[in-house]
Amino acid sequence: MPVIRNRNQIPLEDVSAGSKTQRQSLTEPGSGAGFHMRRFVMGPGGGMPRHTNAVEHQQYVLRGGAEVGIGDETHQVTAGDVVHIPAGVPHWYDADEDEGFEFLCVVPDDEDRIELVDE
Amino acid sequence: MPVIRNRNQIPLEDVSAGSKTQRQSLTEPGSGAGFHMRRFVMGPGGGMPRHTNAVEHQQYVLRGGAEVGIGDETHQVTAGDVVHIPAGVPHWYDADEDEGFEFLCVVPDDEDRIELVDE
Repeated sequence: MPVIRNRNQIPLEDVSAGSKTQRQSLTEPGSGAGFHMRRFVMGPGGGMPRHTNAVEHQQYVLRGGAEVGIGDETHQVTAGDVVHIPAGVPHWYDADEDEGFEFLCVVPDDEDRIELVDE
Repeated sequence: MPVIRNRNQIPLEDVSAGSKTQRQSLTEPGSGAGFHMRRFVMGPGGGMPRHTNAVEHQQYVLRGGAEVGIGDETHQVTAGDVVHIPAGVPHWYDADEDEGFEFLCVVPDDEDRIELVDE
């Protein structure tokens, strides 16, 4: 893995389960101490439906805002917020209609599995 | 650990080995899958002298800029850059004189040890 690279040098890939949602691998699984960093960019009004992941998320909101559902609660989330989503907890994102939503998401290198959950 | 909190709710602590450098624990060691997130804020002209850590760093630059030395190389680093510092590699930070430097730093929960290294 390069020592330094800018996010603009790294491809953004569409997240098929989401709407107007792209994901970028900032660091690579297996390159370090068992975790890696991704950046998610959601366009205005985009988001992800209710789902679970096999792996924990530790997130930091970079820009914009969203309504984020975690378990049975709904939170209004904005830049500078730290979000912790334990493994297996259902969650969803509804990005701000004007600004969209952008966040870092750090996960363990363990294999992930995403499962959509009925509302 | 709370599901959501803003960085403004979390104390910033001075880093004694640094100059105009503060550190904030965004997530807590032991709370998740073996890693945690910190935020560093360096004032204009601040920084950290050449040192090693026992643990890897995966970093994302939030704001400002710095000259960062990693091993024998010096890099100009700015917002949106991803920086990977393997465990044990000497590194240092010299924050921008006008803007300072702010970055996220994700580390494994393993015990760290910082050692200053002669230039």
